[in-house]
Amino acid sequence: MPKPDKSTRRVRARGAGRPSGDEGDLRARLLDVAAAQFARTGIEATSLRAIADEARVTPAMLHYYFGDKARFTEALIEERLLPALAPLREHLEQVDDDPRALMEAFARAVGEIVQRHPWLPALWVREVLCEGGTLRELMFSRIVPNLPQLLAQRFAAAQGKGLLNPGLDPRLLVVSLVGLTLFPAAGAPIWRRAFGAQDLGPDALLNHTLALLDRGVGAG
Amino acid sequence: MPKPDKSTRRVRARGAGRPSGDEGDLRARLLDVAAAQFARTGIEATSLRAIADEARVTPAMLHYYFGDKARFTEALIEERLLPALAPLREHLEQVDDDPRALMEAFARAVGEIVQRHPWLPALWVREVLCEGGTLRELMFSRIVPNLPQLLAQRFAAAQGKGLLNPGLDPRLLVVSLVGLTLFPAAGAPIWRRAFGAQDLGPDALLNHTLALLDRGVGAG
Repeated sequence: MPKPDKSTRRVRARGAGRPSGDEGDLRARLLDVAAAQFARTGIEATSLRAIADEARVTPAMLHYYFGDKARFTEALIEERLLPALAPLREHLEQVDDDPRALMEAFARAVGEIVQRHPWLPALWVREVLCEGGTLRELMFSRIVPNLPQLLAQRFAAAQGKGLLNPGLDPRLLVVSLVGLTLFPAAGAPIWRRAFGAQDLGPDALLNHTLALLDRGVGAG
Repeated sequence: MPKPDKSTRRVRARGAGRPSGDEGDLRARLLDVAAAQFARTGIEATSLRAIADEARVTPAMLHYYFGDKARFTEALIEERLLPALAPLREHLEQVDDDPRALMEAFARAVGEIVQRHPWLPALWVREVLCEGGTLRELMFSRIVPNLPQLLAQRFAAAQGKGLLNPGLDPRLLVVSLVGLTLFPAAGAPIWRRAFGAQDLGPDALLNHTLALLDRGVGAG
């Protein structure tokens, strides 16, 4: 993002919105640092002080930009989490109801999102998939509202037209998609180590997943 | 498990092993309570006192049977986690190298394990999949040592014989299998709610997964 002209810069009061220029850079950096740290140690267990330490600023600086922990977390959701996931819906809206095209669009979108925001899979495991995760409720209401249901409806419609393997459940197919894309991204540190597989990058994962979705495990 | 003959019962000293009869019943119940609680709130965050409260015994009783938290956790791993997962290896050893049969054996074994031990998927998410999880290291050394590698080798051998879809990576296929079995089990509270799908039970999940592995999403 280009910096605004210096002449437009001004110091804003605490909580009054995004500062521009160098101030905006610092504010953005604080959010980036926090996203990675929340993914590593959890939202509830991470204090503003720990984020300040990690970013090498004073806790007062964090308070100046964001206010308290609740408002900081809200800024992180609004300015990092929601924009990170927005392309998923956009990609899915661009394809027709061929189930292979839908699944490929989903897998490609998740792959791109994970590459751009490497903190996202671990944050999802900790704060959505874990029981009691801080973001689980938000997932239903704000993060991807209706997206699973809309996808399942499109799969069901495709199945009705004879375009989808009749042995599949359209709702569980949405779960399978997440299990073949976001889950492997979250588990990458584990399986890379188990298999000594530093060579397996995002393209290898995408190609493997598309091959599996395309015709399953059999060679015939 | 039948209770041993009363005549063989004796009171054992603290930490000297598994007591029999009613004492054994209580000891077993304490481990069951703890497995569920560890899955809900995490091993590190759960105190022996919290487990005692949940089981409606005194903390002294827990100490009597298990000693400190570290020894309690070790007992839980040895007497609950490892036995819970043992059938997985056994099921896989019983099938030949047909990849469909291997995958079906894996999916069926995970389904049975999850039904018998409903706490297991959530514990796996929290303590293995989460960064910094208490059991991640143990997974490599004791819980399923070499199992992912052996499976990948069998898939690679099948691929060499032309029995496996050549577009798949044998290592990533192990990851896909976990993502299609244990991950959906862990996410069940989320997707059951998203889809209002209380009707989708373990059999529906197994049939869906096998259909997907069998020939992918296409109807043709």
